Amino acid sequence: MSAVASVPTLSRIIETHQRLKQQRPLVQCLTNSVSVNFMANVLLSAGASPAMVDNPEEAAIFAHYAQGIVINLGTPTAALVEAMKLAIQEAHQIQKPWVLDPIAAGALPWRGQLAADFLAYHPAVIRGNASEIIGLAGLGKNTKGFDSSNDPAHAVEAAVSLLAHTQVVSASGAVDHLVAKTVDGEDVHHWLVKIKGGSEFFPLVTASGCSLGALVAAYAGITDAFTAAVTAHAHYAVAGKKAHLKADAPGDFAREFINELYRVNAADFEQYLEFSVEEIAVAA
Amino acid sequence: MSAVASVPTLSRIIETHQRLKQQRPLVQCLTNSVSVNFMANVLLSAGASPAMVDNPEEAAIFAHYAQGIVINLGTPTAALVEAMKLAIQEAHQIQKPWVLDPIAAGALPWRGQLAADFLAYHPAVIRGNASEIIGLAGLGKNTKGFDSSNDPAHAVEAAVSLLAHTQVVSASGAVDHLVAKTVDGEDVHHWLVKIKGGSEFFPLVTASGCSLGALVAAYAGITDAFTAAVTAHAHYAVAGKKAHLKADAPGDFAREFINELYRVNAADFEQYLEFSVEEIAVAA
Amino acid sequence: MSAVASVPTLSRIIETHQRLKQQRPLVQCLTNSVSVNFMANVLLSAGASPAMVDNPEEAAIFAHYAQGIVINLGTPTAALVEAMKLAIQEAHQIQKPWVLDPIAAGALPWRGQLAADFLAYHPAVIRGNASEIIGLAGLGKNTKGFDSSNDPAHAVEAAVSLLAHTQVVSASGAVDHLVAKTVDGEDVHHWLVKIKGGSEFFPLVTASGCSLGALVAAYAGITDAFTAAVTAHAHYAVAGKKAHLKADAPGDFAREFINELYRVNAADFEQYLEFSVEEIAVAA
Repeated sequence: MSAVASVPTLSRIIETHQRLKQQRPLVQCLTNSVSVNFMANVLLSAGASPAMVDNPEEAAIFAHYAQGIVINLGTPTAALVEAMKLAIQEAHQIQKPWVLDPIAAGALPWRGQLAADFLAYHPAVIRGNASEIIGLAGLGKNTKGFDSSNDPAHAVEAAVSLLAHTQVVSASGAVDHLVAKTVDGEDVHHWLVKIKGGSEFFPLVTASGCSLGALVAAYAGITDAFTAAVTAHAHYAVAGKKAHLKADAPGDFAREFINELYRVNAADFEQYLEFSVEEIAVAA
Repeated sequence: MSAVASVPTLSRIIETHQRLKQQRPLVQCLTNSVSVNFMANVLLSAGASPAMVDNPEEAAIFAHYAQGIVINLGTPTAALVEAMKLAIQEAHQIQKPWVLDPIAAGALPWRGQLAADFLAYHPAVIRGNASEIIGLAGLGKNTKGFDSSNDPAHAVEAAVSLLAHTQVVSASGAVDHLVAKTVDGEDVHHWLVKIKGGSEFFPLVTASGCSLGALVAAYAGITDAFTAAVTAHAHYAVAGKKAHLKADAPGDFAREFINELYRVNAADFEQYLEFSVEEIAVAA
Repeated sequence: MSAVASVPTLSRIIETHQRLKQQRPLVQCLTNSVSVNFMANVLLSAGASPAMVDNPEEAAIFAHYAQGIVINLGTPTAALVEAMKLAIQEAHQIQKPWVLDPIAAGALPWRGQLAADFLAYHPAVIRGNASEIIGLAGLGKNTKGFDSSNDPAHAVEAAVSLLAHTQVVSASGAVDHLVAKTVDGEDVHHWLVKIKGGSEFFPLVTASGCSLGALVAAYAGITDAFTAAVTAHAHYAVAGKKAHLKADAPGDFAREFINELYRVNAADFEQYLEFSVEEIAVAA
């Protein structure tokens, strides 16, 4: 696991976003059936290139082409799980960043075990809603399946504990909470980044959370994991806020959100992004 | 099979709709690949919570979490069919309501046999278009696959015959025709409910019928099967009518429909809902 | 392989489009998971009837019901590939037209071999982006997976070489390039048709290329392969141009495109279609 360089700033977020649109990183998505179309459109509008190569025959080979990989446990099947294993083993081997989205891992034993096994291959980032992060860390039990019922602020302790396996953990929600660890020589620092989310309509648009995981993978293909996760969430939040201004129902919001992912520019980050970074104390 | 309490009225429809939005029942969807995203968004906008847990490893466990289940035969695969069997066996065991959508069951022998086998586990509601209801009842042959080519009025006899296996049968179309059986002590009554559908654009939006089946399952999670089926169709029809007023092509209609599923309120039911209930004579 | 009658003209394109809306051919789609919903909506709006019968148990039977079939290699799985083989063997046997969309066949060995095997069953039309056509013909290597990075003009030589297996090859892009062979007694003619594409937003809407392949299959169900391919691309280009006039971002474009596929009429073809037909010399 490579060291995380330093703490994201507004100017670095803006610069990273601009590079995404120039470089259009290729993202391999092994994801649930509900999300697959929306996720591809989110990546295309945001400035990346999706490839849903998710079969066991091709998953490992394609990891070499991809710049980032997202593994989403929403609707696992035996074949998809096999493909996931092959992809992340290869990704780990060749140091390709991958993102884990542990949907309902705390509620359902099969996928819970899968998620636990996958951690051994060190995702660059883990992204979920609060109940999923808590569930994955074994601190709670998600009783409502795929739904986001917990406040991300309650997931910080769980998120920190998952830093044993990854560089960054995001519990997204009304206010996204991201925790990360940076290493500076002998010094280890822990950070909590809060990003005000864009809209109360996000939970009413299926796969909007899943697609954020894919956008994190896209950014992880062009920068370090901490900057990637923060920039992806910032991009989402700003597009969401702009979309919310134009929509009063979920159908309109979903369409405007895709539009705004495409339109977001430096001035939008300056105007709409609300985020904070603080160092947090973590018991050794 | 539990008795069906009484005949739905406008006030009960309105009250049931309000409870849906408060309770947001969790719906387990084992459905076709075409419908999966639209169905999730329909449920979210309408006021329910979707969970596409559709693999054999988790389908039966999740039936315990879910308040309603929908089984849709649009694109069966060996693994999905296995998951369906496990889910409905468990649902039958623990008396969880489930809805059968027998897409093209009359046209294709494999899924026809599956649908016939599934009937033994007593769906609370069967929903299909007219040709599918006729096909399932063995009275006709659906020669155009997934398409809705028959008038629901022609499916009433077939629908009544299926009441041997279920509490409510819906043949949806330009005018939805629902038949149900109520038991009052020794007396058995049969009912025909007609609900004027919302828009000629529905057949041009893929998965709109499938997603209605899921909405029936959502309502079945909070009330009896008859009220659930009628309220779901009423919610759909009212949202469809409102959407139709704002759209003159299928792309706009699909988006406005999602918006209106979210917006529908008591006044809309009063203004837009056109339905009738009549007792029908059925030979013993 | 039947002879291709003659060269498409504007009046024949308009007449063919009108027949599509009258006849609403049934199209069997064996396609990737990303495309399946959008493809169905494209077919419905354009004037056809989709049926995603893509399992091994039913694929061959359904080929008898379908008027056209599309085989898309975007996300192959073992079961889907088996269904594809059964469908195209049957289609070949009963002379039902089918369209091959060889996504990333040049980049990934497994699907490359599949595509090569499928050619033995003579697709009526092969449709891909330039890099996929080049990849399939073995003339190049697609290094960016699902993306359209090559100019269709560079794919003409590759497309011509694929005429050994099919009647028409389309490399779609900013300007679609279609090549076809017509046989008139002893005389063989080769044609290059260029159709100016509709919008720079197409590459930002996932599955828009895949869905064009399905529309080719729809038209192939009602006319010869050459007319079918040209009319499908013309329908797409005209709808795309009209949609582009109303959209400045991908979310709006996708919705307007669905609307315009439905609205396109004879006057629109006359106003918006830009195409040319030229005979090309091909070494024997």
